[in-house]
Amino acid sequence: MKKFINDPTHFVSEMMEGLILANPDTLRWKKDSNIIYRADAPRHDKVSVIQGSGSGHEPAHIMAVGKGMLDAAVPGNVFAAPPMDYIVECFKLMNTPKGILHLVNNYQGDRMGWDMAREMAEAEGIRTELVVIDDDVSVENSTYTVGRRGVAGNFFVIKAVGAAAEQGEDLDELVRIGKKVNGVVRSMGMALTGCTPPAKGEPIFTLADDEIEMGVGIHGEPGRRRDKIKPADQLVEEMFEAVAGDLPFSKGDRIGLMINGLGGTPISELYLLYRKAALLCRDRDLTVVQNYVGEYCTALEMAGYSITLIRLDDELETLMKAPAEIPIRTF
Amino acid sequence: MKKFINDPTHFVSEMMEGLILANPDTLRWKKDSNIIYRADAPRHDKVSVIQGSGSGHEPAHIMAVGKGMLDAAVPGNVFAAPPMDYIVECFKLMNTPKGILHLVNNYQGDRMGWDMAREMAEAEGIRTELVVIDDDVSVENSTYTVGRRGVAGNFFVIKAVGAAAEQGEDLDELVRIGKKVNGVVRSMGMALTGCTPPAKGEPIFTLADDEIEMGVGIHGEPGRRRDKIKPADQLVEEMFEAVAGDLPFSKGDRIGLMINGLGGTPISELYLLYRKAALLCRDRDLTVVQNYVGEYCTALEMAGYSITLIRLDDELETLMKAPAEIPIRTF
Repeated sequence: MKKFINDPTHFVSEMMEGLILANPDTLRWKKDSNIIYRADAPRHDKVSVIQGSGSGHEPAHIMAVGKGMLDAAVPGNVFAAPPMDYIVECFKLMNTPKGILHLVNNYQGDRMGWDMAREMAEAEGIRTELVVIDDDVSVENSTYTVGRRGVAGNFFVIKAVGAAAEQGEDLDELVRIGKKVNGVVRSMGMALTGCTPPAKGEPIFTLADDEIEMGVGIHGEPGRRRDKIKPADQLVEEMFEAVAGDLPFSKGDRIGLMINGLGGTPISELYLLYRKAALLCRDRDLTVVQNYVGEYCTALEMAGYSITLIRLDDELETLMKAPAEIPIRTF
Repeated sequence: MKKFINDPTHFVSEMMEGLILANPDTLRWKKDSNIIYRADAPRHDKVSVIQGSGSGHEPAHIMAVGKGMLDAAVPGNVFAAPPMDYIVECFKLMNTPKGILHLVNNYQGDRMGWDMAREMAEAEGIRTELVVIDDDVSVENSTYTVGRRGVAGNFFVIKAVGAAAEQGEDLDELVRIGKKVNGVVRSMGMALTGCTPPAKGEPIFTLADDEIEMGVGIHGEPGRRRDKIKPADQLVEEMFEAVAGDLPFSKGDRIGLMINGLGGTPISELYLLYRKAALLCRDRDLTVVQNYVGEYCTALEMAGYSITLIRLDDELETLMKAPAEIPIRTF
């Protein structure tokens, strides 16, 4: 295993400490329960928006904590749901009179943690609601999932409900918006390589030198098939068809288009992939009003990418363009 | 070679096309001479700031074209200096009454291209000046370099002269600022893996499963030595000593601290590295007033990182904090 780590069991906490040291004014860290939260949270004039999920997908979700985004993130270990008591602790810490919206990607562990934590929170008079994200069109059920998996589409849910929460919308309205976004966002990913969780010490899967995993999950779950590598444009074409054909997206739609790197793919290649996706949108008369090229939801150092499309209307376009702050400096 | 590419000879142009498709309002592309430039450039009330260098280091430099940053970038092929006639073309395109500042990292090919291009530009009455960046403390001379190499410190030069140019400073003043920044910025990098230029089709160097290249260059040039991999904190310690000890940085200094990924290293590991670097700054009583964690100057998909320190005074801190825009959307 060739990584920048010290003791593998400290991987998550040392990453979190780095994030806190880099953002001393805006972020806080409750170390004993893995919670990163906004320095100004909880704010009693708004719903707190939080996410619980495994680590290893950074910037999701600890680096999406900020104004107009998440109020707090409570990650588990790498590729592991956060323990139920951490989620309860996060509920207590972020409790406001307007309640808490909890976002989870559709994995059984994350959902189970939420179910148990909600019960305990309700016993303490904390009101919480849930929005589940399941945007991955690759496969129906999967290794850790009943139904579809939640992947990079999560970003759009965070952005929309984060913006609406900032504007003072109430919990029911945020649930409506979150579900609406999840209803119009679709993704698919593929891998050129596996990745190695630090505590495991070996790759979760391996691919031959000319092999890809089409439809891979962000924890290395199998996709639709193994295949030989092909020219980038052909890969984009297949994935674009799968994603755009699922909703389906139709001629004249206004969309957001995301090319998301899975951790080990350089931004040069991501723009090369974006080129083909943007040209396909043009061919299909889909108007890209917002685009995203970079890393949003990764699988450690996996080389690969995913494509996400979201259909926008006036309400969602406004929310996507609302001001937001994240803890990652670009310049 | 496992990459998202089509025809390897189209790698750079397809990446550039992707960048243009993602930024139709703010960027322009002169395809026949590989020039990406601001849609509002040249502006006759300011010096044009441009950079010529090889591709494969993205976001440097085509993704650093924007307000308060570069007016134009004219890259060559992967790891190859831009042809002299492309640079001349860029001078002509970006010419303003206030002149042109050209930035190059210290590689012989880039400097030679500049020398020849300047002569031709001067014959046409175009005034240009040069700032050379050579921030890499790893080795003295190197494969393509007499003197030290220029690496991620380049970002700070772009940021400072870009901000000053936006404020209307003249060419001589920008040269002074650029040289001042280069005088107080120091970097060092290391690799866990090599990387594969698309047209070459095989790695430029390989490392064993437990091996690192300490002091690697951004084109895979040899560093100080090959070594066994060590815990991240030990690697940071050695590199921090080399960088901080070079200027040297002293107790009480205000600094900017950058942890730069080389392309294949996930942001989780970069924050883990940042943690140790920030703690070392604290130990040495260096006050980090600006921090940068992410990818600024890469070597294709190389796994590795570099550390950069810059000593700030009031002038440079103000320039670092000036508004700027780059074409990479984060959210």
